Amino acid sequence: MIKIAIAGYGSIGRGVEFAVEQAQDMELVAIFTRRPSSVEPCTNTPVIPMDEAAEWSDKVDVLILCGGSFTDLPIQGPALAEFFNTVDSFDTHPDIPKYFADMDNTLKASGKLGLISAGWDPGLFSLNRLYMSAVLPNGESYSFWGKGLSSGHSNAIRQVEGVLDAVQYTCPIESAVEKVRSGSMPKLSIADKHIRECYVVLKDGADAARVEHDIVTMPYYFADNTTHVHFITKEELVRDHSSTATKGFVFRSGHTGQGNVHHMEYSLQLESNPEFTASILVAYARAVSRIAADGKKGAITIFDVAPALLSAKSIDQLRAEVL
Amino acid sequence: MIKIAIAGYGSIGRGVEFAVEQAQDMELVAIFTRRPSSVEPCTNTPVIPMDEAAEWSDKVDVLILCGGSFTDLPIQGPALAEFFNTVDSFDTHPDIPKYFADMDNTLKASGKLGLISAGWDPGLFSLNRLYMSAVLPNGESYSFWGKGLSSGHSNAIRQVEGVLDAVQYTCPIESAVEKVRSGSMPKLSIADKHIRECYVVLKDGADAARVEHDIVTMPYYFADNTTHVHFITKEELVRDHSSTATKGFVFRSGHTGQGNVHHMEYSLQLESNPEFTASILVAYARAVSRIAADGKKGAITIFDVAPALLSAKSIDQLRAEVL
Repeated sequence: MIKIAIAGYGSIGRGVEFAVEQAQDMELVAIFTRRPSSVEPCTNTPVIPMDEAAEWSDKVDVLILCGGSFTDLPIQGPALAEFFNTVDSFDTHPDIPKYFADMDNTLKASGKLGLISAGWDPGLFSLNRLYMSAVLPNGESYSFWGKGLSSGHSNAIRQVEGVLDAVQYTCPIESAVEKVRSGSMPKLSIADKHIRECYVVLKDGADAARVEHDIVTMPYYFADNTTHVHFITKEELVRDHSSTATKGFVFRSGHTGQGNVHHMEYSLQLESNPEFTASILVAYARAVSRIAADGKKGAITIFDVAPALLSAKSIDQLRAEVL
Repeated sequence: MIKIAIAGYGSIGRGVEFAVEQAQDMELVAIFTRRPSSVEPCTNTPVIPMDEAAEWSDKVDVLILCGGSFTDLPIQGPALAEFFNTVDSFDTHPDIPKYFADMDNTLKASGKLGLISAGWDPGLFSLNRLYMSAVLPNGESYSFWGKGLSSGHSNAIRQVEGVLDAVQYTCPIESAVEKVRSGSMPKLSIADKHIRECYVVLKDGADAARVEHDIVTMPYYFADNTTHVHFITKEELVRDHSSTATKGFVFRSGHTGQGNVHHMEYSLQLESNPEFTASILVAYARAVSRIAADGKKGAITIFDVAPALLSAKSIDQLRAEVL
């Protein structure tokens, strides 16, 4: 049995708890949290204060880091990589090279293995971008997300001064989706593909105009898209904006030979974004336990993992039943 | 530069020639064929009689085997694996374990590396079945092929006594496709999913009723499906049945947590089945050259290959640009 622990018991942490239950070759041995008194696991897993995690170092095969990418993982990732093999879903795309380097340095020093950025994007969508472009090098790839709530973008808004709470929906622009799926290989800017809809609860006395300005001009997250900011009450936020359902797709058109055109599409439709992300983390935790057992150290990504390592089935079974 | 050679210059062989042209890190050094006088390559690549291939053993990094799975690969595969690292698209699913064992034995003895069954199914579809079921272990997967011509099934018909030539179209049953995409996770037999339409040119004097019987009762290929046999002339076959366009998809529905349902779909739409298969073979030839350079010997499949090895980009580039 692969011994799994969770660091951070938010919606992804709870999803990991459920996903480990579905895995016959894994057991959940501990949940590490900064707020142990407020955590009530669904299973009877021990809840341990985060600052005692290191004591569990030799009782855990893989620690799944379930904190957010904005403030948690850049600190928690390297701190916990001193003691554990790790998997996380770090999803701030432009900061991946820096986060990878930080994790790689710590992990090489501690002799542990860590896999970063395993979710659906970065994650399964990235895999498809890679496979598709390797097979059809002569072509164009497109990624569309939503309509759905983006926890990374929601978190980014929550960091703005004067914001009490917020959610952000990423919304594909339908005319762009149609052009892409027609196979016409359109040239599309970031702004051509998605609109961002933000629902924001202000703190008492906050300056709405300044908050809106700070959101729509935020680099990487909002500045490159048409962004609409809607101010709502806390009650409206809870009542109308609690769904974590989302969807999205990766599409590639490419040509071969003397002009034959091919289209490839990978699409997801999810009722719970955090539970799906958690399921990916758990599959990659299996791979990390195997690769670490082979003696590999440092940071890796999904691009370094042979698909067979994700499955509970043996390679003989996979060849006979799945290939 | 990775030195590639082709064994067998049919439609897949020609596709490989085109695909190597698109790859900046590869060059085509030879085409091996049993019929050198009838081969006219599109590039100025040397055409070599198949029985002289062994002399090229140290001039080729990876040999791409482009013969058919029905009669060519079971013989040519092990014969050429004595001298070369290989990639092939062996696609007779039930015979994969035996073919893998044959190749593995030869390759371990010769100290070479061979990757078998790299096409779109077995191949990219298999990868998606694996990734999807690893991420959502609690669910159902479905694969649909067509409408499109299946070269494996067409070849199988051509082996029937009295058949001069033939093509077979695999046709999904639309009502089954709709049920699957609705997310209702239907239980479907092989017969529920596809119909097989066969267009057959008889040899002079052949017994049509006996040919039809031999086709529709052929185990694995036809016995489990509703199969329609249409007899046509050679002229009609050439005029109406030369398109190699096809499509298909893999779909999985699965649930997580306390009942959240997720759907994943991978679909392909191809103008040239052999050119697309060839493009996959070439991407995996890149991986084979790298894994062989690392000292690995024997037979492997796509399940053993880390995605990064398929790309001409460096792992740093992939993390920064594709992840």
